[in-house]
Amino acid sequence: MSFSSISELQQLHDFACKLARRAGQYLRGEQVRRQKQTLVTREKLNSVDLVTAADEGVEKLIRDAILAEYPEHAFIGEESYSAGEEKRFLLKDGPTWIVDPIDGTVSLEFIVPMTAISIGFCVNSIPTVGVVFAPFIGGSLYSAIHHSEGGAWLSEFGPTGPSTNLPIVSPPPPLPKDAPKGCLFFGEWGKDRRDSPQSNLVKKSSNFINMATEIGGRDGKGGMVHGIRSLGSSTMDMVYVASGQGDIMFEAGCWEWDVCGGIAILLQTGGIVVDSNPPANISDTDPIPMANIGGRRYLAIRGCSTDSDGRSPREQQEALVREVWKRTERLNYERPM
Amino acid sequence: MSFSSISELQQLHDFACKLARRAGQYLRGEQVRRQKQTLVTREKLNSVDLVTAADEGVEKLIRDAILAEYPEHAFIGEESYSAGEEKRFLLKDGPTWIVDPIDGTVSLEFIVPMTAISIGFCVNSIPTVGVVFAPFIGGSLYSAIHHSEGGAWLSEFGPTGPSTNLPIVSPPPPLPKDAPKGCLFFGEWGKDRRDSPQSNLVKKSSNFINMATEIGGRDGKGGMVHGIRSLGSSTMDMVYVASGQGDIMFEAGCWEWDVCGGIAILLQTGGIVVDSNPPANISDTDPIPMANIGGRRYLAIRGCSTDSDGRSPREQQEALVREVWKRTERLNYERPM
Repeated sequence: MSFSSISELQQLHDFACKLARRAGQYLRGEQVRRQKQTLVTREKLNSVDLVTAADEGVEKLIRDAILAEYPEHAFIGEESYSAGEEKRFLLKDGPTWIVDPIDGTVSLEFIVPMTAISIGFCVNSIPTVGVVFAPFIGGSLYSAIHHSEGGAWLSEFGPTGPSTNLPIVSPPPPLPKDAPKGCLFFGEWGKDRRDSPQSNLVKKSSNFINMATEIGGRDGKGGMVHGIRSLGSSTMDMVYVASGQGDIMFEAGCWEWDVCGGIAILLQTGGIVVDSNPPANISDTDPIPMANIGGRRYLAIRGCSTDSDGRSPREQQEALVREVWKRTERLNYERPM
Repeated sequence: MSFSSISELQQLHDFACKLARRAGQYLRGEQVRRQKQTLVTREKLNSVDLVTAADEGVEKLIRDAILAEYPEHAFIGEESYSAGEEKRFLLKDGPTWIVDPIDGTVSLEFIVPMTAISIGFCVNSIPTVGVVFAPFIGGSLYSAIHHSEGGAWLSEFGPTGPSTNLPIVSPPPPLPKDAPKGCLFFGEWGKDRRDSPQSNLVKKSSNFINMATEIGGRDGKGGMVHGIRSLGSSTMDMVYVASGQGDIMFEAGCWEWDVCGGIAILLQTGGIVVDSNPPANISDTDPIPMANIGGRRYLAIRGCSTDSDGRSPREQQEALVREVWKRTERLNYERPM
């Protein structure tokens, strides 16, 4: 199987959409059950990181279906990764599914709807098919085939509901002239809560404050973004930028399964994703490389159109990336590669 | 009309639910239109505070319907308040509707779904009927009649969809023993973005960091909450705590129309709402008064059950309020009363 033809990718896409809906139905059933009994959870790293039986059940449902349909494909899932010994980045160039059965487990625990199932499919380490399904947000299903003949879509209210092409405003407007001023910024507080000068909590909170502060404030680092959103789900943060419902997603500490599905959608709608830490020695004119999908640090900028000064989308996006880098500290998230 | 009978309140409730759905339909129509053209907006205070034609259109739709049905009732709405000269708090003891046509206008602008219509109805300045409708979150409709024979409900996927009694887990679990540790905390960054030591931005961000930091950190102020959420809508923040989908809502700078509908639901599900600034000279044993509905400072705690130590819901809630007060600075939001 070559994955070069759009019809092959369309098949994979449709399979993943159906599978995400099935998984969502399972989750809604679990939710109803949970409303009748106190949740039994066990703690992972600390009280912030919960795993529920639902989490493992959904991953099994998705993995079993994929392996039955595509036994020759590789599979990376959050729960099996967490349970396994091998902590290196497992993505190879072959066809690989990268799945998060539920992002935002805390949200699920509290039955807050900002929870999503993410199914991504990579070829040559590039997210090529992506499906993000939010069963408690009107059954919103975001999906894309990243291909010259592909597309990106938002389907609402179930399989027979209305479907909208993405980006949600098309063609997407240019980025704001003085970006990050005027941008909608998404980021999460994360699980590292240490009170020490170099902790990720201290740096992340400083980054948020810089982005929020008036222009000129914070020693010139004030970014005066429109708003800062922490939805509790990096999958939803990424998909809102991918669909043009936000401008900037800045998140470190999450994993490839949180963002792989969203990145396929982002790439198809003309967005970019780079490392949230600037690469060493990058100059102001060097082209900015794409983020490593397993790098745990993501800075995504939405797709846009050429602006009235004739700046291309890529020029605007790279300029905004550099403005964000100026206002944010390097975060300490690494992984064995 | 006395508003003492449940059947009178039921009528008002059903009327408000229908009206909220109509307003939601209008908003979805506006959204589709906006996807085809760049939004025309005009700036209010600064670039963060946008008002759109949709905002004014929805308020007119709701106000006209209420005045036609209940000409003797008073009406307070965000848009008419903003446009008027009178900036004092207008709520009197008579029957009064308090309406936010769209909370989270920035979210609406960006077509992010975390946007809600809030319709509240007060008698003797107490929120008595509340409806919060999120047309882009699966058409989730939260509502309540705050009365001994009343109730609170979440209805999803339209008027014929499933309806759940609130709180969403019933009876609601006790608050966590070491609360705020383990709590889900909702709050917003707001519009005051000044970089000065006493600005609300500086204090709010310090409050967020205190709540997030590990126990023992930040000179003992670390609260180690489960998570911090900024959804961009204080209406949704309040309603999630009201429904038991979150534990703490801490927000200052918003207005009565943002929270009135949610507070009716909160009161009916056993939650409490107090001033987010501790009243002057309150002792550790003084009972904590309810928030002034027009006071612009709200600290809400969800309903809960008696815990295994025999502490009543009110005792747990007041203890948690004092723990939050210890970890947060007084915010500078006032209004002419």
